[in-house]
Amino acid sequence: MDFSIRAANLEDCKDISRMILELAEYEKVSDKVKVTQKDLEQDGFSKNPFFHGIVAEVPEQHRTKEGHSKIGYALYFYTYSSWKGRAVYMEDLYVMPEFRGKGIGKALMSKVAQLGLAAGCNQLDFTVLDWNKSSLDFYIGLGCLDVTVEIGYHCMRCQGEALQHLAQP
Amino acid sequence: MDFSIRAANLEDCKDISRMILELAEYEKVSDKVKVTQKDLEQDGFSKNPFFHGIVAEVPEQHRTKEGHSKIGYALYFYTYSSWKGRAVYMEDLYVMPEFRGKGIGKALMSKVAQLGLAAGCNQLDFTVLDWNKSSLDFYIGLGCLDVTVEIGYHCMRCQGEALQHLAQP
Repeated sequence: MDFSIRAANLEDCKDISRMILELAEYEKVSDKVKVTQKDLEQDGFSKNPFFHGIVAEVPEQHRTKEGHSKIGYALYFYTYSSWKGRAVYMEDLYVMPEFRGKGIGKALMSKVAQLGLAAGCNQLDFTVLDWNKSSLDFYIGLGCLDVTVEIGYHCMRCQGEALQHLAQP
Repeated sequence: MDFSIRAANLEDCKDISRMILELAEYEKVSDKVKVTQKDLEQDGFSKNPFFHGIVAEVPEQHRTKEGHSKIGYALYFYTYSSWKGRAVYMEDLYVMPEFRGKGIGKALMSKVAQLGLAAGCNQLDFTVLDWNKSSLDFYIGLGCLDVTVEIGYHCMRCQGEALQHLAQP
């Protein structure tokens, strides 16, 4: 199946917002999604964007029965490792279920890798849920390292009241 | 003991580079540090910086026997959660051993939290090595969540030949 991969623009935020919800439903946490289409427009497409996006599109004749031709996306941003220097972080990688197994996910991730290397990055980081065996297998198959298992890194988070309290001088 | 917390500038990169190495020695991985003072100057203090820094300083009379008065630092950058929106990531938090237990680490982290909240961030993320029990206890004591244990997130990485290979179209 033909598909194209391109940088996301403001007009893609509606579809990205829809797919963020689909991904969260797959991960069984759709109630946790607070980000709206408007947030994406503001945070990703203003002067100092918090993230960048890539979308995968299929030709009109392959669109879904609901009429969607934007059928996958990745969000990424640049980060920094105090050991390795410039890095790129892939926040989401999603392809709608009926379009999986066609190389679209790998093409999206490959584009993030290309952009990262072009910006001088030495590593591409992301996270995976431990029960998501098919995704873990996909990434391990690409030669990725499970840093939590191999080195013992734990992801930590401060939010809500704890964050407000921590910020008190 | 008096100390001050302030935004890092270009002239701090020499001391930050020294402390990055000290932290890596503590984590038993100093051979993995490829980042130099020059990298920090270029990547953190050019037009579109990959990170921001904060340093902790003590008055002259408390400087170390080697003459260091910059005795702690934190590196951070802004990221994005497709569920929660704007976020801030703390890449490193370090205080020289002889200055620990005086609230300097907490003051550095508090500053990152303040800056994050001021930028509209909803969470502060970071990673901890699982064997680093004293740090884990410190963070849990601040109300932070171990996302790897609680939700099952694994940190993943693509680097070296795997990254080059992934980036091939």
